Amino acid sequence: MSYLDHIRACNNLDLMGFVPFKVSGSHVGWIRRDNVRHLAARGDVFEADGGCIAVLSTIDTFEDRTSAVAEVVRELSLSGVVPKPRDEVYPVAEDINRSPFMLIERSAIPFFGVRASGVHMNGYVRLSDGLHMWVARRAHDKMTYPGMLDNMVAGGQPHGLGFRENMIKECGEEAGIPERIAENVTPVGFIDYAHESADGAKPDRQYCYDLELPQDFVPVIVDGEVDEFMLWPLARVAEVVRETGDFKFNCNLVIINFLIRHGFLDPDTEPDYVEICSGLHCRGNLFR
Amino acid sequence: MSYLDHIRACNNLDLMGFVPFKVSGSHVGWIRRDNVRHLAARGDVFEADGGCIAVLSTIDTFEDRTSAVAEVVRELSLSGVVPKPRDEVYPVAEDINRSPFMLIERSAIPFFGVRASGVHMNGYVRLSDGLHMWVARRAHDKMTYPGMLDNMVAGGQPHGLGFRENMIKECGEEAGIPERIAENVTPVGFIDYAHESADGAKPDRQYCYDLELPQDFVPVIVDGEVDEFMLWPLARVAEVVRETGDFKFNCNLVIINFLIRHGFLDPDTEPDYVEICSGLHCRGNLFR
Repeated sequence: MSYLDHIRACNNLDLMGFVPFKVSGSHVGWIRRDNVRHLAARGDVFEADGGCIAVLSTIDTFEDRTSAVAEVVRELSLSGVVPKPRDEVYPVAEDINRSPFMLIERSAIPFFGVRASGVHMNGYVRLSDGLHMWVARRAHDKMTYPGMLDNMVAGGQPHGLGFRENMIKECGEEAGIPERIAENVTPVGFIDYAHESADGAKPDRQYCYDLELPQDFVPVIVDGEVDEFMLWPLARVAEVVRETGDFKFNCNLVIINFLIRHGFLDPDTEPDYVEICSGLHCRGNLFR
Repeated sequence: MSYLDHIRACNNLDLMGFVPFKVSGSHVGWIRRDNVRHLAARGDVFEADGGCIAVLSTIDTFEDRTSAVAEVVRELSLSGVVPKPRDEVYPVAEDINRSPFMLIERSAIPFFGVRASGVHMNGYVRLSDGLHMWVARRAHDKMTYPGMLDNMVAGGQPHGLGFRENMIKECGEEAGIPERIAENVTPVGFIDYAHESADGAKPDRQYCYDLELPQDFVPVIVDGEVDEFMLWPLARVAEVVRETGDFKFNCNLVIINFLIRHGFLDPDTEPDYVEICSGLHCRGNLFR
C-alpha cells in the first residue's frame, strides 16, 4: 500500500453508476442506479426530473419534506434496503452554512448520496524524541468498521451543533478528555473525498482538528465506542497508514493531512508529494 | 476586500485567451493568443500543432531545445516582448519530479505560461499574547512588485536545487537567518493558483514552509531584496491580508494557508471557510 492508495480508496466513487438527487432544484446527492426503483415506486414523494431523482416539487416546506422522506426511509429500513436507523438526523443542504432543505436519518445518508460532514481530531504529545499520536481502536461491537484503527476522537456532524461544540462533546464522550483540555482543539482545515460502499455514495467532508495533549494525560474509554487507546511515535502511525489497511478508510486521509502540516512529509523526499497534498481535496466539487 | 477576493485575484487566468504550449507531445504551458505570432514567425524553432504551439519535434534533445528557445527568448527580450533576463533558468517539465524537457530563462516563464515553483516561508514567534509573524517589505527598487509586503523569506525554485536547500539559502540571503536556525524550516504543503498578468500566464505552485523563531531573533537585511522586516501580531497580519492589497498577490494565499493550519480561521465563524480552504488548490490541474 501507499499514501496514494488510501486517497484512491477513499475516492472510488464512480458517478457513472449514480444519478443526481435534487431537492428544490438543487443538486444535493447521488443515488445508485439500482436503488432508483425504490424511490420511483413512491411517486407520492419522489419524481423523475430529466435523468435525476427529485423530491416532488409540491412537497415544498422543510417540515413536509423531512416527514415525507422519513416515512420512505423507515419503510426502506424495515425491508433492509437502508441500514438500521441510528436515531440521529443530518441536514440536506446546498452547503453546510445554508438552511437545510430537510433532514434525513443518518443511516440513509449514503443511500441518497448526500454530503455528510464530520469532525476528526488527532491528539498528539510532544516528547523528547518527537511527536507521538494517540490512536484509537474502534470497539469490536461497533456497527460500522468494528475493530479498525481510528483517529483519537471523531464523530459525525449532526444538525444544530457547532463544529467546535461537537468536537468538545465527542472529546468528553469518546476519550474522557475534560473540557479544560478539549477547549484547546484547533481547527486546521478539512479533507474531501468521494467514496462508494455497499450503502451508497459518501461524498463527505471531514473537518480536522489538532489537540496537543499534556505528556501525562491518558485518555479514558467512556462510551464504549473505543476498545483501546495507544500512544505511538508519529513514524509508527505513518508506517501503519502507508503499509496497511488497519485504519478506517477516511482516518488515513486525516492522518496524511496531519503528516503534511507537521512537516513529516517532505517535497524533497516524497515523490508523490504533489499528488498526496492535492488528493485530500480532489473531489470536493461533486455538486457544482 | 476579503480572503476570497485574494484567491480570485490569484486565479484570474482566463484560458480562452491562451493556447496550449507543448514540448515533446506534453502540455507544459499556456501562451497568450496575441503572443503566438512572435513564435509563429520563428518556424525554425516552433510549429503549430492542432491549435497548440509546440517546439519543433525535430529539435529533440534537452540541449538543443534549451539553446534554440534561448535564442528566441533573447531576441524577444531585446524587442521588449519579454522582460529583461534575470540570468536564472527554470525547468520545463511535465512535473517537478520528472527530467525537464529543457530550461527557459526565468523572465520568459510567464510568456510561455510554464508552471514555476517557488518556496515561501512564514517566520513566526510565540509570545505571551499569541503568535506573531515576521512580515517583509520588498525593496522599492525591486524589478517585480516593488514596495509591496511579502512573506519573511521567499524565492523562485531554480533548476538543480532541492526545496529545503533553496529555502535555507534564501533564509540566509534575504533575512540573515543563520543555518542552525534555518534548518528548522518545516514543509507544510503548497498553494496552487493560475494567474494572468501583462507578462502572460502564471500557473504556479508555491511550496510553503513554517519557521518558528526564537523570541529574541531579529532578521537582518542582507541582499537588498527587502527594505524592512516587521513583527506583527497574527491578527494584524490577517487584517492586512483581508482588508488590503498591500501584500504581493501570491503571499496572501501563503498567509491564508498559515491562518488555516494554525487555527486562526474557524469553520464555526468564517462563513467562507470551505471556499477559502478549497481555493488554495482549486486550479492545480491545468496541465492534465
